[in-house]
Amino acid sequence: MAVYTHLTAEDLAGLIADYDVGELVSAKGIAEGVSNSNWLVETTAGRFILTMYERRIDTAELPFFLGLLDHLAGKGSPVPRTIHDRSGAAFRMIDGKAVALIEFLPGVSIDRPRPNQARAVGEALAGIHLAAADYPAQRSNAMDLASWRAMLADCSEEGLAGIDPALPGLVSQELDSLEAQWPRSLPRSVIHADLFPDNVLMLGDTVSGLIDFYFACTDITAYDLAVTHAAWCFARDGSFRPDIAAALLAGYEDRRPLTPDERAALPVLARGAAMRFLASRAYDWLHTPADALVTRKDPMAFARRLEFYAARGGEAFPRAAA
Amino acid sequence: MAVYTHLTAEDLAGLIADYDVGELVSAKGIAEGVSNSNWLVETTAGRFILTMYERRIDTAELPFFLGLLDHLAGKGSPVPRTIHDRSGAAFRMIDGKAVALIEFLPGVSIDRPRPNQARAVGEALAGIHLAAADYPAQRSNAMDLASWRAMLADCSEEGLAGIDPALPGLVSQELDSLEAQWPRSLPRSVIHADLFPDNVLMLGDTVSGLIDFYFACTDITAYDLAVTHAAWCFARDGSFRPDIAAALLAGYEDRRPLTPDERAALPVLARGAAMRFLASRAYDWLHTPADALVTRKDPMAFARRLEFYAARGGEAFPRAAA
Repeated sequence: MAVYTHLTAEDLAGLIADYDVGELVSAKGIAEGVSNSNWLVETTAGRFILTMYERRIDTAELPFFLGLLDHLAGKGSPVPRTIHDRSGAAFRMIDGKAVALIEFLPGVSIDRPRPNQARAVGEALAGIHLAAADYPAQRSNAMDLASWRAMLADCSEEGLAGIDPALPGLVSQELDSLEAQWPRSLPRSVIHADLFPDNVLMLGDTVSGLIDFYFACTDITAYDLAVTHAAWCFARDGSFRPDIAAALLAGYEDRRPLTPDERAALPVLARGAAMRFLASRAYDWLHTPADALVTRKDPMAFARRLEFYAARGGEAFPRAAA
Repeated sequence: MAVYTHLTAEDLAGLIADYDVGELVSAKGIAEGVSNSNWLVETTAGRFILTMYERRIDTAELPFFLGLLDHLAGKGSPVPRTIHDRSGAAFRMIDGKAVALIEFLPGVSIDRPRPNQARAVGEALAGIHLAAADYPAQRSNAMDLASWRAMLADCSEEGLAGIDPALPGLVSQELDSLEAQWPRSLPRSVIHADLFPDNVLMLGDTVSGLIDFYFACTDITAYDLAVTHAAWCFARDGSFRPDIAAALLAGYEDRRPLTPDERAALPVLARGAAMRFLASRAYDWLHTPADALVTRKDPMAFARRLEFYAARGGEAFPRAAA
């Protein structure tokens, strides 16, 4: 959460002049995004998020991400549109870095969701799966099962054991098990792949925005529901919240009913989702200096969710009361 | 530039409910302020800056700062009002930290001012000096001449020499000289004391906001003009910009003509202003880890301005062409 680059008012006014969005009125660097710098920009025509892509994001992939926003918004999903410049470009380069101007959406991110909010998130997630069905571009998931093993191998057994003595054993056993059990024939689509509460804006019980699509890719559709489940259905103390899980699933199935195969696969997909965030957080934990600008996230939160799904996966996905 | 504290949407909504400002619509942590956390908050009634005072600021001093905003805004200065809660309080406590809700003002901070912009800044600065004349509270300047010597003594000769070999000699000679020459009988008032471009919001050539009054204090009025001169009248390469200096002074004197004694004192006051920022920057440079969250500012920029004022103070304050 930082602004990595200083853009002067003169830089910003020059940039804004290339878009049909009026005159610059205000610009505040905002503390959002771990790999981008972001400004909340107000012009005489409205408000926008200006994103500068600092690292991790390959400029060649921007058309996939920015085009997806336009596609989903065009189908009525609560997703910010990309503002194109006067020449029609979705992004521009400043000092060798790509920048894009994106619609500002109202709403706040929820820390402790209520069931009605989880239901709305499930509905919105199903909505983007349906809306993305005819999105023509594809992007492979750079954070797939093979990448989890690679990231965790790079952490080394000693590194993982330094985080928690039981971690190497859990990781080794679960990676083997996931590789053996990972479903190969479930429906696929564009998925968000990172729909944490930070990436959902809400006004009351309504989803006003789904944001930060920079992990979006083509993968198992139900895996996205499993990621969202792993991200939303646990209290801060780590305990499972069955009411939130039931509401999330019910909301999702209101819009896109799961096939029997998808529902049966949810426990293994959720173990995969927990492993995915365990892997990236352990990697960042061991590769980020403790005093760096970016706050490191505790990998053990997802180790515990992984254990929960492995032991009690059946009860993690309650059916709504008939 | 950071947000030091995480406030959840639930925290924010609870806080907002204690003010008569409608419902929470959006909240973004913004990368402004070095000793505070700030959020740009939108409600159904408007936009506000929510400031949480993290360090350096003594809660007992908040009534001085927040009351000053109300006083100046009430007299038409472009200063954000303090929003009082339903019980009339100007600030509240959350988890032991003071928070205040302050009016949002449009505008952007200028990096490379034009003369017309410097003139507007001079006018606005004189405007707050005039408007503050009957502000009943007083606050001594914690960053006064005695504090410069104390901060620089704490840096040690070795520390200063590590920044630049010539720095201990410059500091020693100039501190002695400033103590001998510092004016004792010039008009005093409430001053901003930190009116850098960061703390001025502009729309074109108009000053739309003067912000960040947390160094405001009662001191020599013309010293505030000298601080503003030292902060605005040098290009990024360190060269003096006489056009900006002339415009700043002309704008100031349009609203508040200087007395002959004030004008004569400007060179020594400007040496003091340069020493003040040299002292705090050198102190921070030597006491802040190089990899800390806060960007350290180069003390040498103000050492060079100090040398400029010492050598060529007469030409630093050009009179406007008749």
